[in-house]
Amino acid sequence: MDTPVNAEVPTPPDPFFTVRTRLDGQLGRTGTIHTPHGDIATPSFVAVGTKATVKAVLPESMKELGAQSLLANAYHLYLQPGPEIVDEAGGLGQFMNWDGPTFTDSGGFQVMSLGVGFKKVLAMEAVGVQSDDVIAKGKERLATVDEDGVTFKSHLNGSRHRFTPEISMQIQHQLGADIMFAFDELTTLLNTRGYQEQSVERTHAWAVRCIAEHEKLTAERTHRPYQALFGVVQGAQYEDLRRQACRGLESITGESGRGFDGYGIGGALEKQNLGTIIRWCNEELPEHKPRHLLGISEPDDFFVAIENGADTFDCVNPSRVARNAAIYHPDGRFNINTSRFRRDFTPIDENCDCYTCANYTRAYIHHLFKAKEMLAATLCTIHNERFTVRLVDQIRDSIDGGYYAEFKAETLGRFYRP
Amino acid sequence: MDTPVNAEVPTPPDPFFTVRTRLDGQLGRTGTIHTPHGDIATPSFVAVGTKATVKAVLPESMKELGAQSLLANAYHLYLQPGPEIVDEAGGLGQFMNWDGPTFTDSGGFQVMSLGVGFKKVLAMEAVGVQSDDVIAKGKERLATVDEDGVTFKSHLNGSRHRFTPEISMQIQHQLGADIMFAFDELTTLLNTRGYQEQSVERTHAWAVRCIAEHEKLTAERTHRPYQALFGVVQGAQYEDLRRQACRGLESITGESGRGFDGYGIGGALEKQNLGTIIRWCNEELPEHKPRHLLGISEPDDFFVAIENGADTFDCVNPSRVARNAAIYHPDGRFNINTSRFRRDFTPIDENCDCYTCANYTRAYIHHLFKAKEMLAATLCTIHNERFTVRLVDQIRDSIDGGYYAEFKAETLGRFYRP
Repeated sequence: MDTPVNAEVPTPPDPFFTVRTRLDGQLGRTGTIHTPHGDIATPSFVAVGTKATVKAVLPESMKELGAQSLLANAYHLYLQPGPEIVDEAGGLGQFMNWDGPTFTDSGGFQVMSLGVGFKKVLAMEAVGVQSDDVIAKGKERLATVDEDGVTFKSHLNGSRHRFTPEISMQIQHQLGADIMFAFDELTTLLNTRGYQEQSVERTHAWAVRCIAEHEKLTAERTHRPYQALFGVVQGAQYEDLRRQACRGLESITGESGRGFDGYGIGGALEKQNLGTIIRWCNEELPEHKPRHLLGISEPDDFFVAIENGADTFDCVNPSRVARNAAIYHPDGRFNINTSRFRRDFTPIDENCDCYTCANYTRAYIHHLFKAKEMLAATLCTIHNERFTVRLVDQIRDSIDGGYYAEFKAETLGRFYRP
Repeated sequence: MDTPVNAEVPTPPDPFFTVRTRLDGQLGRTGTIHTPHGDIATPSFVAVGTKATVKAVLPESMKELGAQSLLANAYHLYLQPGPEIVDEAGGLGQFMNWDGPTFTDSGGFQVMSLGVGFKKVLAMEAVGVQSDDVIAKGKERLATVDEDGVTFKSHLNGSRHRFTPEISMQIQHQLGADIMFAFDELTTLLNTRGYQEQSVERTHAWAVRCIAEHEKLTAERTHRPYQALFGVVQGAQYEDLRRQACRGLESITGESGRGFDGYGIGGALEKQNLGTIIRWCNEELPEHKPRHLLGISEPDDFFVAIENGADTFDCVNPSRVARNAAIYHPDGRFNINTSRFRRDFTPIDENCDCYTCANYTRAYIHHLFKAKEMLAATLCTIHNERFTVRLVDQIRDSIDGGYYAEFKAETLGRFYRP
């Protein structure tokens, strides 16, 4: 233990979050999250660097394209290189050469979903109901949940591991991101109402343990800046469960009396209910704490989430689809791999301000994909991340500038024009 | 044809090449090649971007690491995207966002070696001798040479194609690099003396046709800056053939009377005879024209080649081995994939001035390889290319500064210390 005697226990920046402009008659707002590694103007898109790298892109390129913060995955970094390596390196940001704010997720989603064959589907030994036991045919069950935590097999080599709320907190403290998430249980829309009720209770109990472990680790690790902890709201599509989950999380204050620094809205979310569910949560959650929505990146989803009070978002999609030649454009998504781009010597988007659009033609990028060159992924990821970051930045500006409704109508009308 | 009437026929920069400092008692020299896209201080390493991209690295990174020029491959770009696409894009440099000098090779090496199974091995229908007919077992013969050119199958899809000296010139003019190479016949050390004699004669005849086609295309394509053409010296390990080949190439002057703008030393070269063969050639070749050596990148080879009068070099090795985690270091090459680097929080080389060494640890790069992340290739390629470019730059400085022998002894003593 390298903690100096009587060293001061790190505390959050004060204020941690400030609200600037409110959207008239709705829950949306602009604001700023203050972290030890800089501010995040919200609403903001958080780019994903799963294994401590945004795939195929240098961190300087991420900064240049306007990414304010990055999110890495505790599960992946736990397996490789191991959280103690990242800790010794000085934490996630220093390890990966990113001096801005960082997030890590809790690992909950990955340990319960990876390898099972269906996304957001897992099985629990204690429950026999068919709909709580859905796994893909021919797939081995890789994760089992009990009251204390989750036992799972590595998707890399099948080795057995166990995550509990305490272990997730220990890993995330070692990773050292500015914003962490509590370890929650993942459920799916296929689970029964009864299972969802139990799950909300279990997630609440785990949240209590996360806060306790977080406060203990914060007091021990005085050589590191304060890491904020967000509670995660479950409750699937049930209004009463969502509201109950939010009130429950808010009631957890820990020894410091501070409670969670913010909240993540997680779990099963159908696109058509997205706004409604986020609204239920944000009507309950305290206004002065930021709210993160896990895993969205489509233009219409951003508007729905933001006007219902979500502040930050992360998603692998802009980079994942870029590696498959799918390009975001104000007029909709298209695939640059198709032959019509073979001799198209215009940029992806003439009005885009990204590095790729400033320097390369569609014909060149098309060639890179055909030639299976790595630079294809680099250039398209830069463009898609810029598109996504800029869209959320523009929504923020439109709220601050009082023209949100017009901007929304114009943007969505153009992107989804049939 | 978009040539303006009476447009002036492009001519080489005058002078195209200037010699600055000579190495006492040896053939080595420093100098400058002047191209329409900028100067190349020689000796210089030319980084390879086979398919109009240095694999995994942005062109700005190549510029930042000191690469003065890039070389692309006519064969690969002929198959994908097709030379007419590169031409329409404004030429190789504009297509790939590189505003510095560019080279293309003739495609000869690739059409005669790719897919055959042995490097630098091909077969000729007309010759029955076993040693001129070596292909790997189970491999189909993909290329056949006749007096007029080479017929070959694409390594991508097996489609049949034909290169002649004229076609190679047409392709290379469409690609638009500042420096091109004449289409030569590739032989191997396994070929008979008799075959090598015929091959030198054939390569000479092809060189005559290359100059003629080059002059015709130069006169036609007045909208483009002058492209320099280098003749290629064959002759394998035979002194008389090498000297004869050089004198032959020098005697070809074309209609303009200018002849080749420089020379490439190609063909079969055993490491232990490298210096001797280069010396034979450069004792024959005119002093005021630059000489390129195809395909070397090892530190000892650079010294041997440079002191025997070679000016520029290209090689895929620094980037190819980087993608397999092999790292160049002043103390020798090592593999960063091995477990001893797992928690090594020092840079690859503390004294290296490259982007990778300034910003990343061995532990992080090790992690990227273990995690199969593309950034591993990017960071290691940047380092290896910087190592190689800098080494040749330092050799140049040592000749200009009069301390070549000391620099050579120190560098090789350190790199190859057992």
